[in-house]
Amino acid sequence: MKELHKEKKMPKATAKRLPLYLRYLKMLGDSGVTRIKSKEFSDVIQVPPATIRRDFSHLGELGRSGYGYDVPYLIDVFSHILNTQEEKRIALIGCGNLGKALVKNNFRRNENLNIVCAFDSSEAIVGLSIDDIVIQPMEKLKEEVEKTGVTVAISTVPSQYAQEAIDKIVDAGITAILNFAPDRVTVPNNVNVQYIDLTTELQTLIYFDETFTGNRA
Amino acid sequence: MKELHKEKKMPKATAKRLPLYLRYLKMLGDSGVTRIKSKEFSDVIQVPPATIRRDFSHLGELGRSGYGYDVPYLIDVFSHILNTQEEKRIALIGCGNLGKALVKNNFRRNENLNIVCAFDSSEAIVGLSIDDIVIQPMEKLKEEVEKTGVTVAISTVPSQYAQEAIDKIVDAGITAILNFAPDRVTVPNNVNVQYIDLTTELQTLIYFDETFTGNRA
Repeated sequence: MKELHKEKKMPKATAKRLPLYLRYLKMLGDSGVTRIKSKEFSDVIQVPPATIRRDFSHLGELGRSGYGYDVPYLIDVFSHILNTQEEKRIALIGCGNLGKALVKNNFRRNENLNIVCAFDSSEAIVGLSIDDIVIQPMEKLKEEVEKTGVTVAISTVPSQYAQEAIDKIVDAGITAILNFAPDRVTVPNNVNVQYIDLTTELQTLIYFDETFTGNRA
Repeated sequence: MKELHKEKKMPKATAKRLPLYLRYLKMLGDSGVTRIKSKEFSDVIQVPPATIRRDFSHLGELGRSGYGYDVPYLIDVFSHILNTQEEKRIALIGCGNLGKALVKNNFRRNENLNIVCAFDSSEAIVGLSIDDIVIQPMEKLKEEVEKTGVTVAISTVPSQYAQEAIDKIVDAGITAILNFAPDRVTVPNNVNVQYIDLTTELQTLIYFDETFTGNRA
């Protein structure tokens, strides 16, 4: 991806649109779309075609006139750009089965994403280890975040306790939270929560399978 | 949600748009939008406002004239409709840490979603149990799917082996697959694959946190 040396010159306004572009491109790719023109893409994401072409031009030669853009290639390039170039230290909150699996997998696809500490409110498991990470009590979170330079948290705390856990995460100074409990939590404006809702993903898959594709309909 | 008795009278064309509506409403909700008019929603999803109003009218009184629609309420209603009303039996393929966590959690939020069998290609773990489910060899998949009425598969098989695993899942007659390996696999047209890409979700969260919100920028 030789184009990526241009990344540093990208205007901030362009940078801000990248996650939007990537998200829609993935939806298009998932629907089997392999190629798209700026006008068509504009219709989908409601950004003017000229803006799309200008944004993409900052990233190098991504398309050909009259042909449009190659969707899988754009996904590759944008994924690469969104890929953080510096280490991000992550705290895991909630050390049940899912939490353990996350620590053990530890984002192997990206060496810059590292879960470095783990917390749980249950006295029964505080002090136990997942691989080489010792589970600490929630009361230690703020201190540990300051000590280790953690900037990101992943919460696997169940919905009924999620708000309480998120409040402690926010209080510890963390502004980026990946939340595996799908119920929406309340956070200050400067805090970003991304939800992973596996039940809804599965339900939507089944609904598509039966309604769109007509399997077992 | 008294409106839901009208669900059965919903035209198929409306039903087909529900996952699209829900997906975009969640994106809007995640961006802090709490209320939207049909015209604005139309601009986002490229469905004519009259179609949106007609679709929504099949679902009961979801909006008020001049006020628009309440986004969290619509998310609730649509999530409820997409929620399958009959039991779906699920096969888990790949019994590493993540697979184990999925079996143990087993979609507790929805009693109709049940992981009933588990498979792995590693002889070392075939025969072991996760809770009361015995891990079976991949060669048993087709037979077991037919015997137990499984219609959905979840694959946690790593990317480099995912295509091989997906081929066996498809061969077993399953058409709905939730895939935790983000690299795209090839499947026949009647098979639906939904990807869960935790690394990209985390990267996008971090990117938003730094670029949009200006934290640590």
